[in-house]
This record gives sequence, structure tokens and C-alpha cells, in this order.
Amino acid sequence: MEPFDDVYFMKRAFQEARLAYDQGEVPVGAVVVANNRIIARAHNLTETLTDVTAHAEMQAITAASNLVGGKYLNECTLYVTLEPCVMCAGALGWAQLGRLVYGAADEKRGFSKFAPKALHPKTEVTGGVMADDCSDLMTAFFQERR
Amino acid sequence: MEPFDDVYFMKRAFQEARLAYDQGEVPVGAVVVANNRIIARAHNLTETLTDVTAHAEMQAITAASNLVGGKYLNECTLYVTLEPCVMCAGALGWAQLGRLVYGAADEKRGFSKFAPKALHPKTEVTGGVMADDCSDLMTAFFQERR
Repeated sequence: MEPFDDVYFMKRAFQEARLAYDQGEVPVGAVVVANNRIIARAHNLTETLTDVTAHAEMQAITAASNLVGGKYLNECTLYVTLEPCVMCAGALGWAQLGRLVYGAADEKRGFSKFAPKALHPKTEVTGGVMADDCSDLMTAFFQERR
Repeated sequence: MEPFDDVYFMKRAFQEARLAYDQGEVPVGAVVVANNRIIARAHNLTETLTDVTAHAEMQAITAASNLVGGKYLNECTLYVTLEPCVMCAGALGWAQLGRLVYGAADEKRGFSKFAPKALHPKTEVTGGVMADDCSDLMTAFFQERR
């Protein structure tokens, strides 16, 4: 039994996504983990801040770099409920992220389709963790707004 | 004679790049223009802020959205001394930027090679304005550091 596995941390990212949902934001959440400790957490705030750059991942990178005291996050894992977009993957590439774990795939905006080389070549990638939960939350959000 | 042409505004972006240079930052500068008025200006601050997301364009988007009071910059032109990277192009895509004008091309990190569809399909793009000046400033910066 490993208490700190990918599902454990994705649940924390999912909690962040729920906070976004409750604020009327597209429900995406993220946490950054180093040595089995969460060092940053964030959720999408693009509407609240009127700023397209306020994706969960971008805020998480800024917060984690602050805490680490350096630009590079090569010792960190970022958990995010949705596959990062081109912008966020580009940022994670500059940060030389150690490992990326995402929940639901994003066919329309995901980096793997539109910028497959955006991440650092050494970044390990795992997709599909709690994919159904993450995807269901997105679907519920957009159905409410139709 | 048109006083407010692309060279006029690129010179303002270049002034921002010089500020970055003087601070020991990779010298990239940007201004956002709406109705022939500069509504935001910024230069790269990644070292100063210890934050890979602090590219000139990202800060310019955030500042311009603040001033416009909306997320979308479809009435705006962004002038930047270097071709945007994948991250910045992704952000400009979300912002639905009206027009992008850049100076020097970036063979190694530019979006046109690594994420050619990152911008909004309606964004007009002009490259190569004051390309030699912009490129020379970059070269001088990296030569000093060798």
C-alpha cells in the first residue's frame, strides 16, 4: 500500500477543480508535488481575473517556483485534471518539469495534438488518471451553461 | 507620411527589450496597441521574478486585459521584438489577438515551427519588422555571457 500514489494527488487537484466549478470557472485544478509533499495548488481563474493566462497550471508554476526559489521544476510532479493546453505545456517546457500527470484528455485544445514537442524532452508524462471524474466535471459545467 | 506605423511601435517594443538587457534579462520587449495608442508595455522578467511565465508577451496580455476590462484583445495589436514561443503564442490564441507583429524570427523556440496553429485563426501576423536590430540585441546579450 502506497498512500501517496497518483490517485491520491489527483484527488487533491480534483478538489481544486471543484473550487473553480463553484466559482463559475471552467473546472480545472492542479497541484505541484515535490518529495510527496504538495508545494503549490491552484485552479483556473480566467473569469475572476479577466486574464486568459490564469490557467491552473500557470499559477501553479509561478507558486511552485516561488517556493522552490528557482525557475526549474525538474524535481517536481504537476498533477492537473485536464490535459494542458499549448500555453501551459509551453510553460511546463520552460520550467523543465520532472513529471506531468493529467486526468482527462483534451481533444480540442490539448498540447499533444497541437504542440507535441512543447514539453522538455526529459519530462515523464502519464495521462488518464481519474479521467472519468475529471471529464464528467467538465461536461457538467458546460451542460449547465447551455 | 503615417507617424504611427509598425516601425514606430516596434521601436517602443525595442526600448522595452533594452530595459530587459540592462537588467541582465534575455532582451525581449513588447507593447500592446489599440487605436494607435500604447495600452501596455512589458519586458522579459524571468530572472528577476524567478518565473518562466514572466515573458514580455504574457505580462503585456495581463496588463492589456486589465486596461481593456475584458479577456479578449481582438481590437489590439501586439508588437514584440522576438517571435513568440509556444507558451506565448498559446496565450495570444486564447486572447484572440487581432494582430501580431514581431521582429526577429526564433528558429529554436518560435511558435511557427512548434505550434503553427496556436494563434487564433483570425489573428493577422507580420514578422520581420526591425528584425536586424532585434536579432543583434539578442546576439550581443548571449555573446556577453559566453
